[in-house]
This record gives sequence, structure tokens and C-alpha cells, in this order.
Amino acid sequence: MCRWAAYLGEAVFLEDIITAPCHSLIAQSHCAQEAKSPTNGDGFGLAWYGDRSEPGLYRDILPAWSDPNLKSLCRQIKSGLFLAHVRASTGGATSRMNCHPFVSGRWSFMHNGQIGGFEKIRRTLENSLSDEVFDQREGTTDSELFFLLMIDQGLAGDPLGAVSRATGRVIEASRRAGIEPALKLTAAFSDGQALHAVRYATDGHAPTLYTGAFARRAGRCIVSEPFDRDGGDWQAIPPSSFVTMTKAGTDIRPFAPAAAKLAMVVG
Amino acid sequence: MCRWAAYLGEAVFLEDIITAPCHSLIAQSHCAQEAKSPTNGDGFGLAWYGDRSEPGLYRDILPAWSDPNLKSLCRQIKSGLFLAHVRASTGGATSRMNCHPFVSGRWSFMHNGQIGGFEKIRRTLENSLSDEVFDQREGTTDSELFFLLMIDQGLAGDPLGAVSRATGRVIEASRRAGIEPALKLTAAFSDGQALHAVRYATDGHAPTLYTGAFARRAGRCIVSEPFDRDGGDWQAIPPSSFVTMTKAGTDIRPFAPAAAKLAMVVG
Amino acid sequence: MCRWAAYLGEAVFLEDIITAPCHSLIAQSHCAQEAKSPTNGDGFGLAWYGDRSEPGLYRDILPAWSDPNLKSLCRQIKSGLFLAHVRASTGGATSRMNCHPFVSGRWSFMHNGQIGGFEKIRRTLENSLSDEVFDQREGTTDSELFFLLMIDQGLAGDPLGAVSRATGRVIEASRRAGIEPALKLTAAFSDGQALHAVRYATDGHAPTLYTGAFARRAGRCIVSEPFDRDGGDWQAIPPSSFVTMTKAGTDIRPFAPAAAKLAMVVG
Amino acid sequence: MCRWAAYLGEAVFLEDIITAPCHSLIAQSHCAQEAKSPTNGDGFGLAWYGDRSEPGLYRDILPAWSDPNLKSLCRQIKSGLFLAHVRASTGGATSRMNCHPFVSGRWSFMHNGQIGGFEKIRRTLENSLSDEVFDQREGTTDSELFFLLMIDQGLAGDPLGAVSRATGRVIEASRRAGIEPALKLTAAFSDGQALHAVRYATDGHAPTLYTGAFARRAGRCIVSEPFDRDGGDWQAIPPSSFVTMTKAGTDIRPFAPAAAKLAMVVG
Repeated sequence: MCRWAAYLGEAVFLEDIITAPCHSLIAQSHCAQEAKSPTNGDGFGLAWYGDRSEPGLYRDILPAWSDPNLKSLCRQIKSGLFLAHVRASTGGATSRMNCHPFVSGRWSFMHNGQIGGFEKIRRTLENSLSDEVFDQREGTTDSELFFLLMIDQGLAGDPLGAVSRATGRVIEASRRAGIEPALKLTAAFSDGQALHAVRYATDGHAPTLYTGAFARRAGRCIVSEPFDRDGGDWQAIPPSSFVTMTKAGTDIRPFAPAAAKLAMVVG
Repeated sequence: MCRWAAYLGEAVFLEDIITAPCHSLIAQSHCAQEAKSPTNGDGFGLAWYGDRSEPGLYRDILPAWSDPNLKSLCRQIKSGLFLAHVRASTGGATSRMNCHPFVSGRWSFMHNGQIGGFEKIRRTLENSLSDEVFDQREGTTDSELFFLLMIDQGLAGDPLGAVSRATGRVIEASRRAGIEPALKLTAAFSDGQALHAVRYATDGHAPTLYTGAFARRAGRCIVSEPFDRDGGDWQAIPPSSFVTMTKAGTDIRPFAPAAAKLAMVVG
Repeated sequence: MCRWAAYLGEAVFLEDIITAPCHSLIAQSHCAQEAKSPTNGDGFGLAWYGDRSEPGLYRDILPAWSDPNLKSLCRQIKSGLFLAHVRASTGGATSRMNCHPFVSGRWSFMHNGQIGGFEKIRRTLENSLSDEVFDQREGTTDSELFFLLMIDQGLAGDPLGAVSRATGRVIEASRRAGIEPALKLTAAFSDGQALHAVRYATDGHAPTLYTGAFARRAGRCIVSEPFDRDGGDWQAIPPSSFVTMTKAGTDIRPFAPAAAKLAMVVG
Repeated sequence: MCRWAAYLGEAVFLEDIITAPCHSLIAQSHCAQEAKSPTNGDGFGLAWYGDRSEPGLYRDILPAWSDPNLKSLCRQIKSGLFLAHVRASTGGATSRMNCHPFVSGRWSFMHNGQIGGFEKIRRTLENSLSDEVFDQREGTTDSELFFLLMIDQGLAGDPLGAVSRATGRVIEASRRAGIEPALKLTAAFSDGQALHAVRYATDGHAPTLYTGAFARRAGRCIVSEPFDRDGGDWQAIPPSSFVTMTKAGTDIRPFAPAAAKLAMVVG
């Protein structure tokens, strides 16, 4: 299980969210409070949107708390839309390619949770990807693969539908493999315009998700765990929800898996 | 293109081969003389056989010339059979999982060369692997995949045949993809007993391969480039050769690809 | 604060101590139980004695729990005398040169604790070193500097005396700087023959130290925290003790600082 | 010897200078043409000025050519003043703290060259620093120490004078140690307003230095080696020169060491 935080609003220094708050994401890398494992020391990553349509990406395998580069980048870079992640591996080696966020074109994605029984369905899921999407696979994690499934299911045109169908493909693959579907999915993703998040689990026990205003309402955050503790106006998002944040406001809709074919693409 | 060196014989300190000679593998990481690229700074690795049946494995992404751990390990560890490699990437990120040697059970493998057009045939080749072998894939290189093809083709019982058939699968996959087969293969591998090497290229221009006695004939080396320059008794191995070294002696046989079916395993 | 374990006895695979036990040092890197901070993720290190008079040294900045090299080395290397350490920084960057153990010639040293007010007395202490010893300084930690003070005070000929006088120098430097001496020192060190350890703190609250037999009495361990939990015969070492282990047996003596001049060497 | 490039002018993407040109700094990390050693693979670094008075800093120990983070940062970050460096160690370990640029407050500094006989005069030079400046020492290189000498000599108020006197201190320390002064100094540094560079060597053979307009004259570069080869208007700076670039223009003055006392500060 991991911890993450995302922001949309007026441009702020990344450090205002990531390193400065008392229970910041960096602090959570050392001692998260609402996660199964308090330590999230298996790498970290940062995707931020600036002058380009595609995001900048900075990932490394050190614990976030001990990386001086991260501290300096967060102090220096301003952005109105960014995603940050600290990793606690549930399998998959500690390598940069396995660190979140994952990026594809203008899209970025990060995840807290896991695909249960992944080793039994990984190959089937990978083979259901189109060649074009398959070629984007760089690492070995379940999270990156879920992101690729989303892309394959039409993320660009229909974010909610794409996540629903990607979830459906995982469930279908599990059933074919004769195992109980066991997906935990608290994830955030963006195309540089809107910021989306989903909270869902096949067993109903989805990892936590919160939204909250940042500072004088100049922006809003979506986080796996609040980063300040003194009151604040954090709002817990219920399980089976899909959140979309834009500068116009925040929209919360019910989320459910959708049936999706799991064809073998390769031949 | 990369550089590598392997040794079989009486136990010696690894440094006697890897760091001490004037044109040692470490020196070659900085300025190889018979390679396309003089710099082999994209990681390195070491597999050595000791008290276990499976080898020890040490790989990292720094250039070999700047790793103090490598220097200390080579100074300390004695072995009668080991493989060492410095990497110049032909694609594939600089990560530990992409560094040679690759290890599977008691087998180790390292490679200088590449599978031309790899991005066009990678998926077909991966899908031709049995589930059991596919699950061993950790990185993204063509070299690791070739090793897995060898395992899939019966490396344990028939080394020469397995390499021939793995080569055949690469050639067949290239043809199916409508591209000219372009494999360069100067590789060494071992099961902890015998030390094998192959020199082959589909276009006849295979990377160099040499054998030579080490010191007072207590052991023999197989290398991609001699590590001392002053005479020595280095013997160039001709292209399309398969070398097997044991304590009893060195055997050199002709090597040619063998036809191999390229079935899709997954379903 | 850090965690460490040392072993002296018949040669065993390092993994028998470092990775295999249920509450092994690797497990302690994730969740130590008797340390101030449960996470020891700021690097690790290993010094072991083999065929050379000086030890092998392997240190890296990843958390110990996520380093595949460490796992393989521990599985492969056998030694009758070794020191292993997982680091929780009390200051000083996460770099290889700041990871324990530190090595000088045939001596190795590792430390759990810290020199309180180090930034105020560091320069005075460094300047009290002879040129020859000063030149061995590679990193910036208080622990490495304490080791150099020990060497400067005649470690080679009189281990207990050298530690006593090094402690005295720290106390004297603190007084000169007008601060309360605040040294915590639970350390182990070796010359490849004997294994020494010290438990001392200026305020009487020294970090824990234990000895215990390993397996069928073929060897003995000195550790900052026992690595198995089910009974065992772990013996807590009282504060202000100096332990010397040889193959002949274990000797425990009282430890106290000794007066030591703090001359400025440089000129 | 190393390679570096600096830019002052209208804000541009860092990649326009650092990664995009045909003979860019990244290309020079692999095959520099005017350097003693063609490979500059011992780490790299980047200091850029943006919305803060102090610069951002990104340094790592991988070769610059294989770091995906560097590529993404350069593609994303825009700046009107930045320094970039690829390192070929002349001693000193490969660690982040030994990578250029070095930063102190709003100042940044990077260096191509070395202090000859450094090991014989290092301690004297370090001890001539005031406590406040000494405490900024993080690594072990001659380059960082030279930067600290500059700060100690009043860099903030008198850049040319500070470099002259720092040079004088190195020369004086060499004489006291009974060795021939052997300083090679092609360096660039900035306070976020002006961009300074110096080219000097005690033996008259200073590493190369060039200035040139970038693109449509929106900015100017100072580099150790031109990064495009097709004509361009690169101007070689003569030895014993001090260059100051501001938005108002470029000023080139003669440079010579100045006498400087080398008192021992510590006591």
C-alpha cells in the first residue's frame, strides 16, 4: 500500500503540499497513519503539468525522506496540477520503472492498492492489450498494467468508462483463472486539465480517499490521507466513488465495474 | 555492445581477472578497444559459483569503474567459475534488472550483441514462452529474453541444441514480422559445472570472442576482448562456434541455428 | 539510531544471521522493536573477514529490505567473523560513505548512537586527528569520526584504552564548546581476530546490547536487538561495559571514559 | 576533467541547451572532443534560477546520458539563468555531494579543472575557512573547497577579487607544502543575476572556455566546449580571463591571482 497526494488549482510551489505540511506526503513516507504499512520507503515519484501538454516526471528509488533532489525540486517548481506518490511495494522490485506516477502522453496515473493474485492473471491481462499500448509497458507492477488497461479501454475519451471497463477486465481475468477477484483501487490520474480519482475494492474495503481545500480556497487536493491534522475541511470520499475535479468544481459519481471483453490481441 | 569475461579453473580471487589486469574488464568499461562503442558505462554484473549450487549475483547501474563495492567484492571473493559483464545499452533502460548476468536456478547467462528489430518481435517471442519460463522475466532486454528462450528450449539437458533452437526462434519471429533476421550473439553461460560460449551472427559479423590460459595454467578464460595486451596466448574463436570448457578441457564445435516452432503458448 | 549484528565463530552463511531469522536484521530495518525509530531505511552495510587480512565491504544507500544484491551476497558468502548494520540517520546525508561499517586496514567499526551537539564540536575533533588518520575521512558522520578518534588513540594495540580515550576526547571537546557532553555509544568493531563491543552513554541511557549463542553453539553473536524472539539465550549487556569475544570465550569488563588530550594537530 | 554549459538570457527550456543540440552537454558526457578524457560519466548536476532567489539543484551519480529524470526535467523546466555540468572525476568518490554545481544560498558554482597535489594541501585549505563557511562543506572534492574559499574571500561583494584571492590561497598553500602550485580553473558561477566565468591555470594551460549567442540572440552561453559544430559564432576566451555576463552585455577582464593570507582559523 502506498500514499499519494494530488492538487488542482492556482499554481503553488510543490513544497506547499508535498514537504511543508506537518503530516506531509514526505512525513507519510516515514509514518503513514491510515495505511496498512506505516513505511512507504520503496521509491517515490512526481508528475506535474507546466508549459508542456505532457507532464514532467521525476521518480527515484530512495525513500522520499532522504532525497535532497526531491526537496529542491518541490521548493522550486510551481504548478497548478500535480500528482505525488510514495511507494510501499506489494511485489515488484524497487526500480524507477516501478515507481508511480506512470505517464503516457499527456496522461499521468498513480495508485494505492493492488491487484490480488496478480501473478496468476498478469499474462492474460498483458496479452489483452493492443500492440500499441503493450509497447508502453516499462516495468512489472500491477499498477502500471492497470493504467495501460485504462488507456486500452479509451481513457482519452471516457475516463469513468475506461476505469470501469479496466476493472471489469481484471475481474474477468480473475474468474477465468479460477480465483476470487481481489482488486483494491484508490487511484488518481489526469490529462493535464481535469484531475480524476477513484475509490473502489472488490471486497468493499477500499483504501481511504479524501478531498480538501488548500489554503485560501485557491485550489483543492485529493489525497489518500490528510496531510494536516488540525481540523481542516477534509472530506472522506465514500467507497465506490469516482471523483472529477476541474477548475469549475468537484463532481462525485458512483463507480462500478463494467463488463469488458478480454480478448487475446496477439496472434 | 558490451564487454564480458568468464573464468573456469582453480579458485582465484575475482580481482585477478576483473580488476587487476592492465586491460581488465573494469578498464574496458572505460575504453574497450574491439567494441563498437568504447564506453560500457550502463551498469555491470557478476555471477560466481561457490558453496551453493546456484550462483551469487551482484549487479548495479553505476559504471563499473566507479563502484567501490565491486572492487571490494572482487578483492575478497574467490571462485573457480564466474562470469562478469560491463554493459553498453542498445536499448532498454539502465536498471538492475536489465544488467547481465541473468540467473535462473543454477544457470547464469551474459551477452554481447543484440536482437535487431527487437521491438517488432518482442511480443511474439515473449508469448512463445511457457508460463513457467515467462514468469522469470524481470527486465525488458533482448538479452534476458534470449536466455529465457534457451531455457524454454531445454538448456538444462542440451546446451548447444537449446541455443541453436532459441536462435531459430528469433529468426522465425523476424521472418513472420517481415524483417530481416539480425541477431548478434556472443554470449557465455554456465550451470556451475561447465562454461559455455557461443559466437554467431546472422550476417556473419559476430562480435569477437577469445579464449586463453590464465596465469600458470591453473585456469582458462573466455572473453569478448583480451584483458592483457602483452602477447599472452589468446586464441580468437572463429564465427559460428560453440565453446564448452570443463576442467577436462576445451571443446569447440560449429554452431548453426536450428529450426524451432514458434507456437503461441498463452490462451 | 540504527540496528546492527555481529558474529564470531565457525564459518556460517551470512544469511543465517542477517536475513533468515524471523526478526533478522533485515526485518529490523523495517520494524525494529527496541529502537527509538522503528525504521532503519537510510542505507546498510556489511563487513566480513575471509581469505584476506582486511575485510570485504559492501554498503549501499537503499533500505536493506529492498536490495537484491544484499540478499544474494548473504546467501552466498560464508564467514567466521562479520559485522552488519542498518542505518537510521541522525544527521548526515544518505550516501555510501556515510553507511556503516567503516573500514581502515584490517579494522572494521559500526555504531548505534550519536555524538550529541556534533555540529558544535566536529571541527575541533577533526583537527585533533593526526594527518595520517585525518586523510582516511571519507564521509561526514559522527560515527566515522569516532572510529578515526579510536584509531588515533591506538586502537591497534589497546582497543579498550583507545575507545576510553576517544570517548574522553569527545567529552573534552564538548566541555570546551560549552555544551553538555552527550555521547551514546553502542558499537562493535574487529581486527579480524577478536570481536569487540562497547555499551556506554554519558547520560546513563545507553542503547541496548545483547550477546547470545548461535545455533548449536558453533558461534556467538553481539547485537543491538535479538533477532529471534522465542526464548533463545540472549544476555543483556549492562551499560558501561566493554565486551571482547574471541574463539576462546567472551570477556566483559567495565567501561569508563579516560582523560585524553585534545591537541590541535594541524599547523 | 569535466564539461559544463551555462546560459543567461530570456527564459528557455533547459533542453534547448542541455539535451537538444547535436553536440549537447549530454552528448559530451559520452564523447567530449576538447577534453582530456572523452567520457564524463561520474555524475552530473543542474542549478537553475526561477521564482526563488536561491537556485534549484538536481544532481545524481548516474552518467547524464542514462538518466530519464534529467531528460524530463530539462524538457519541462524553463529558466533564464542556469548552470549544467557532467563530471569526470579526478579523485573524490562518485557521490551526489561531489557532483557539481555546488550551491550556497543564492550562489551556484561549477568547475572544470583540478587543484594539483590536493591531498597535500587539503587540510590546510579547509582549516583556513571560517567556521561558518567550513560548516557548508558536504563532500570531499577540490572543486567544492575552492568554491568555499571564494565565499570566504568575499564572493558576495567582489566576485573577481574573491576568485583572485581564493586562487592566491591555493598557491600559497602549495608553496607552504613545498609543492609546485598546479591549479587548473575553468569555472562558472552565479548569484542569480550575473553569470561569471574564469579561465586560468598556474601553468598557462587552462581548459578551454567559449561564449556564444544562443538562437535568435535572446540569450548567451558560456561553455567548456561548443555544443553545436556547424559554424555558430562561438568565441574562444583567452587564458587568464574573467568573464561577467549580465542582461546588459558581456564583460571580459584579465584575471590574475591575488595575494591572500592563509591563516589558520580554528583554535
